[in-house]
Amino acid sequence: MSRKGVLSVISGFSGVGKGTIVKKLLSEHDEYAVSISATTRAPRTGETNGREYFFLTKDQFESMIKNNGLIEYAKYVDNYYGTPREYVEGKLAEGKDVILEIDAQGAMQIKRQYPDAVLIFIVPPAAEVLRKRLIGRGTESMDKITDRLKRAGEETAYIEHYDYVVVNDMLDEAVMDVHIIIQSAHMRRKENEDFITSLSKEIKEKFI
Amino acid sequence: MSRKGVLSVISGFSGVGKGTIVKKLLSEHDEYAVSISATTRAPRTGETNGREYFFLTKDQFESMIKNNGLIEYAKYVDNYYGTPREYVEGKLAEGKDVILEIDAQGAMQIKRQYPDAVLIFIVPPAAEVLRKRLIGRGTESMDKITDRLKRAGEETAYIEHYDYVVVNDMLDEAVMDVHIIIQSAHMRRKENEDFITSLSKEIKEKFI
Repeated sequence: MSRKGVLSVISGFSGVGKGTIVKKLLSEHDEYAVSISATTRAPRTGETNGREYFFLTKDQFESMIKNNGLIEYAKYVDNYYGTPREYVEGKLAEGKDVILEIDAQGAMQIKRQYPDAVLIFIVPPAAEVLRKRLIGRGTESMDKITDRLKRAGEETAYIEHYDYVVVNDMLDEAVMDVHIIIQSAHMRRKENEDFITSLSKEIKEKFI
Repeated sequence: MSRKGVLSVISGFSGVGKGTIVKKLLSEHDEYAVSISATTRAPRTGETNGREYFFLTKDQFESMIKNNGLIEYAKYVDNYYGTPREYVEGKLAEGKDVILEIDAQGAMQIKRQYPDAVLIFIVPPAAEVLRKRLIGRGTESMDKITDRLKRAGEETAYIEHYDYVVVNDMLDEAVMDVHIIIQSAHMRRKENEDFITSLSKEIKEKFI
């Protein structure tokens, strides 16, 4: 059916494993592209411009905002983060299913501009799993983890704005769930109006 | 996620192969159940009550209508056709994904009563394919085929009420498309309100 790309947003609590899901989805299927965010924060050791982020100056970022060059953006503490329009719309036009791994505020901005975007929220099977995963990473202080868990509590309020919810219990199942949600979107009637109109016309002309 | 059954309607032009798709879906996956229609028409040779149809008298059928025992029904020429409520709701409660293979008028009745039902319309890749398939069956006169094709032309008007459109070009792909549409419906947020509410409550209580 439609091979116009489908735009999806994947959000979820910190530690729920959304990055792992997206990475696995990309490694297993060719039809996806993940948008790279732009940011004004400084690159960390090992980060490369155009791979983890597009690293911009504050002036560059604000000029992108002015020129409508971002489809969503936000400011956290002193740094901007946003999604460049050109990459996303270019990939969609190529027929790629573009995934944005962004937070709920960004998701809401996307939904307003792209009402057909598919919004997916990843949740853990139980609250305790979230804490265990964050501790298991071993990369952050207990204070930082407590902050992240508190934020998760606040983010629950946004789930009601999402179209789909996927439980990340077994990773392979969660990846498959996300995959079938996005692929089913290609068969939505609205995605295929042109084909349906021309087929209907043909059937009526030939057979009535 | 939700293992409450999903109710789906599969419609499509005569000859498009919807019966074959449904049969294959059932043979490949355990989660489906297909509703058996009730009718007042006489059984044909080889047809068994409770397999192809539930064969009822006119009085029995009309008493089912009165007792709200059918979730949709219609009268064609002199015979009633309808879908018994008890079977459908019983299977849904068991967690089976129930498929109704019914026409557009029935589909509209279903959508009014079950707004979450997933409506899928099967189309051929091109008009001519429809004619070839009907002729290829070799079971009907040219007059009957012409009638069916004319009806297809009229039925195009209903496609706009469906949620999804699947092209039956390669059978295996069409079966897979229908399968992922129905399975993705289990991840709809609305299908999982209870789980989300209790998880959100748990996260807030533990972490905020």
